[in-house]
Amino acid sequence: MTLHPPLSARLDAIVRRVPDFPRPGIVFRDITPLLGDPTLYRETVTAMAAPWRGRGLTHVVGIESRGFLFGAPLALALDLPFVPVRKPGKLPHRTEREEYALEYGTDALEMHTDAMPAGARVLVVDDVLATGGTARATARLVARVGGAVEGFAFLMAIEALGGRALLGAARIEALLAA
Amino acid sequence: MTLHPPLSARLDAIVRRVPDFPRPGIVFRDITPLLGDPTLYRETVTAMAAPWRGRGLTHVVGIESRGFLFGAPLALALDLPFVPVRKPGKLPHRTEREEYALEYGTDALEMHTDAMPAGARVLVVDDVLATGGTARATARLVARVGGAVEGFAFLMAIEALGGRALLGAARIEALLAA
Repeated sequence: MTLHPPLSARLDAIVRRVPDFPRPGIVFRDITPLLGDPTLYRETVTAMAAPWRGRGLTHVVGIESRGFLFGAPLALALDLPFVPVRKPGKLPHRTEREEYALEYGTDALEMHTDAMPAGARVLVVDDVLATGGTARATARLVARVGGAVEGFAFLMAIEALGGRALLGAARIEALLAA
Repeated sequence: MTLHPPLSARLDAIVRRVPDFPRPGIVFRDITPLLGDPTLYRETVTAMAAPWRGRGLTHVVGIESRGFLFGAPLALALDLPFVPVRKPGKLPHRTEREEYALEYGTDALEMHTDAMPAGARVLVVDDVLATGGTARATARLVARVGGAVEGFAFLMAIEALGGRALLGAARIEALLAA
């Protein structure tokens, strides 16, 4: 009999820790080894989708660009429209824009104004929850077009960075806590 | 009896043409309406995967970031490892880098050196084949690590821009010619 370790242990083993990237003191979580294991990648998408079935969601939003790698397969798994949130100047139609703070300066994200109708019930997807800045900016974009964020799905939450505190009362799911 | 128009006609109808984006004279092909139709999106992924089954491929490479939206689901559909090619400075491990020409100046793409073993047989995926510069740069990255590009899969090929001529003898498949 083969005993499979739980998914979280397999994910923890395959995500590569790269110290001092992109800056000294940061331990970057590299998901590329996971993407290179199609069985585990598929199982990950299935597990990320599971808590959200039957909850009346209408749209899945993925944050550029690693959020596309989980959000798009998740949307297909849940049979829901996929909405990309992108860096400024990438989306060609009319957009809403939301700035967010970086350690030094600000950056911004954009979403098409026609990406979803008012009343949409939205799941926001990204690979890692760190400080929560991009996830909160994405939630604000959803609110601007009249949607409501029902929850957030991450592969991994780095709890020490306090991102959960920025995301309000919406449900937050992560397969792995780091 | 309902007659379904062929997939190419449905794709042609749903891809939005945005004139003068990102610059005057360019007609940008906006795939976001396709991403918003999960049935058509899934059918698109299935159709993009079909020509490549049973051909001994070992890896699927997707070009950041719209190539992730087709490459990642395609890799999952073909049960193959997915390898992201990214803009400079995004991949945290050791990388190869390839520059390519833009209309004004140059840009570059990077791939992890350990993304695939020597001898890999690779499918390169992106949403649109335009001038072919990013696809050719990606093929060169694959060659640098010892892989061979067996083919290219695009949602759409803009034939007037001549991208096919840059891509050598490898097979090129696109669901839609524009």
